[in-house]
Amino acid sequence: MNNKICDMLGIEFPLVAFSHCRDVVAAVSRAGGMGVFGGVNCSPEMLEEELSWIDAHVDGKPYGLDIIVPNKVEGKGEQLDPEAVLASIPDEHKQFTNDILQRHGVDTGRIAGDIEAVRREQVAFTDNLRGGTAEAILEVAFRHPIGLIANALGIPPQVMLDMGKKHDVPVAALIGTRDHAMSQVAAGVDIIIAVGGEAGGHTGDISTMVLIPEVCNALAQIGDDTPVLAAGGIATGAQMAAAMAMGASGAWCGSVWLTTVEAETNPVVKEKMLAATSRDTVRARSRTGKPSRQLRSPWTDAWQAEGAPSPLPMPLQSLVAEPPLRVLDKLSQGDNQGARDLSTYWVGQGVGLMNEQMTAGQVVQGFKEDFLTAYERLAANLGE
Amino acid sequence: MNNKICDMLGIEFPLVAFSHCRDVVAAVSRAGGMGVFGGVNCSPEMLEEELSWIDAHVDGKPYGLDIIVPNKVEGKGEQLDPEAVLASIPDEHKQFTNDILQRHGVDTGRIAGDIEAVRREQVAFTDNLRGGTAEAILEVAFRHPIGLIANALGIPPQVMLDMGKKHDVPVAALIGTRDHAMSQVAAGVDIIIAVGGEAGGHTGDISTMVLIPEVCNALAQIGDDTPVLAAGGIATGAQMAAAMAMGASGAWCGSVWLTTVEAETNPVVKEKMLAATSRDTVRARSRTGKPSRQLRSPWTDAWQAEGAPSPLPMPLQSLVAEPPLRVLDKLSQGDNQGARDLSTYWVGQGVGLMNEQMTAGQVVQGFKEDFLTAYERLAANLGE
Repeated sequence: MNNKICDMLGIEFPLVAFSHCRDVVAAVSRAGGMGVFGGVNCSPEMLEEELSWIDAHVDGKPYGLDIIVPNKVEGKGEQLDPEAVLASIPDEHKQFTNDILQRHGVDTGRIAGDIEAVRREQVAFTDNLRGGTAEAILEVAFRHPIGLIANALGIPPQVMLDMGKKHDVPVAALIGTRDHAMSQVAAGVDIIIAVGGEAGGHTGDISTMVLIPEVCNALAQIGDDTPVLAAGGIATGAQMAAAMAMGASGAWCGSVWLTTVEAETNPVVKEKMLAATSRDTVRARSRTGKPSRQLRSPWTDAWQAEGAPSPLPMPLQSLVAEPPLRVLDKLSQGDNQGARDLSTYWVGQGVGLMNEQMTAGQVVQGFKEDFLTAYERLAANLGE
Repeated sequence: MNNKICDMLGIEFPLVAFSHCRDVVAAVSRAGGMGVFGGVNCSPEMLEEELSWIDAHVDGKPYGLDIIVPNKVEGKGEQLDPEAVLASIPDEHKQFTNDILQRHGVDTGRIAGDIEAVRREQVAFTDNLRGGTAEAILEVAFRHPIGLIANALGIPPQVMLDMGKKHDVPVAALIGTRDHAMSQVAAGVDIIIAVGGEAGGHTGDISTMVLIPEVCNALAQIGDDTPVLAAGGIATGAQMAAAMAMGASGAWCGSVWLTTVEAETNPVVKEKMLAATSRDTVRARSRTGKPSRQLRSPWTDAWQAEGAPSPLPMPLQSLVAEPPLRVLDKLSQGDNQGARDLSTYWVGQGVGLMNEQMTAGQVVQGFKEDFLTAYERLAANLGE
């Protein structure tokens, strides 16, 4: 395809695949799109290992990296006291999660230690990020032949923009409103990823259908030609064509890869996703403290019910919700029915369009065909 | 344009305009789209007058009618006791609205009588609908040369479907989920209006970008060729092209007409809408008891605030909210700043794309041009 994003990224089809699974990343890049590895939860050592694997499996095709580097790190370099953080989680919240598990027949006594261990790992990781790991991660990243670096939260710090420029790697940023897009462009970002409220994970509440033209119009008005990738609810080539008809230069998709053969998604959750309609997601603050869209399950329902505790601010709510959910993921792969019922993961409303397990390469191929069908449909309407 | 909806409705451009303003309806039909008059709040006599006016101003072009005819009317024929209904509104809710008004400097003592008068009118109207007015409305409707009849809530009653068939008038129904679309098609509806959560007024929470392909795929799977009109957030021709790339046969728009020259929208609200971005709406139960999307104002904020009373079920919440809002509308057109601040109306997120006052005819023309631009943009991406 012939457009700004394809030129900038050196790819043939402007479909960008965000995934925490390196197999998906490599497969999408090999198929003509661009895989972007979600490295948010990686230490520098883990990232080095993952990117090396991708280098060896991507057949020289371009791939990207998505991380979170806070623009301002409060108290950077200072050490947090992990014990103090752990102690600041209210008992009410821990008790509430235990109650949910027990109501679903999960023996919380047996897994209390596992949950606590995950929680301690998480605190240590949060502490690392504050302690300067961000720079170490950037150094690892730019030692590899990445073709895109995206910052998932807020305006990228100057060091990231500078390193991108130095290595000729476009820097992308995720936004959910017109005004945030304008701030990102003013800061010097090369690609805007406009995320509609139907997206999985952290998301605002402006829909993709409105956000894309609103952002594109605003950029056009100031004569700025920063390309826009459309995200949020997109799981088919027809939707990608729709977004590009409205001015986007391509699509950024996350959810659609979760049900692929390559994805490391919990198989129980994968099955739920394949069966789900678009109604089976919920946007709630209960997983991280900020609104994020997830697959509905009795777990999310419990947090939405009257009388549930108010979600804590970031990062405390993650320290409440993530450890039991990770342990449930493991339990659900045995025969623990309660764990299977409760299990959930982030996913967008596009889950209603994900009805068949395919390889990542087949998904890319499906997008290409569906894109053409959509274009021809439009042409037929015009009698062309 | 060459498609199913154009053939079925006898129009040239598949843009359908829902409006409570007869001038907008006639102007859109004259410009090649189809105006659909929102007659929900009309008595049979009012509807007769409005449709006669449209007949005289539409130059013989097709137009439609949107009404609400409940599928089952509980206690149909029985008379409600208006005094009993009025007495069932909790004082807490009336006091809460009074408090909002007073906090904004509105002299509630002076307008208490006006508010009560509007409330009594509303109760009488609700009573009428139960008492058999629905049939009288259908009789008026089919005496006029309407080219479409839409039922805004639920599956149309058999009498509406039968009258549509008898008079060769397509019957349309609004839906917000795939399953509702399937039920409507099974009931024999001729056109599905798929309304995304970004729409103004009553709306679900599945986005247009997801709902359109999900509904179109589901229809295709059962070999059904009922055409789908896309609604929700659509205020430009590029979005209409996007929806049609995904399989819709046209667009159903409501919000975009509210800021036209012809619209009878409160001028204060019209100005607010022209200045608003997509962030300035809220989907809340506080206006009617069911979730509806409205322009944000201190009025909607007050109802969203902690400690606000829970919205009552339909139709009671409308009897709480509508009377003061109608009186505020009048006050705001004088120099009452509090009333100006509080004033609001239903509108979708597409309000962020409505930045300039135009005539309804200019809006249609703009849609046509923007549609072509979008198509050419897609063609250029494909190197065509």
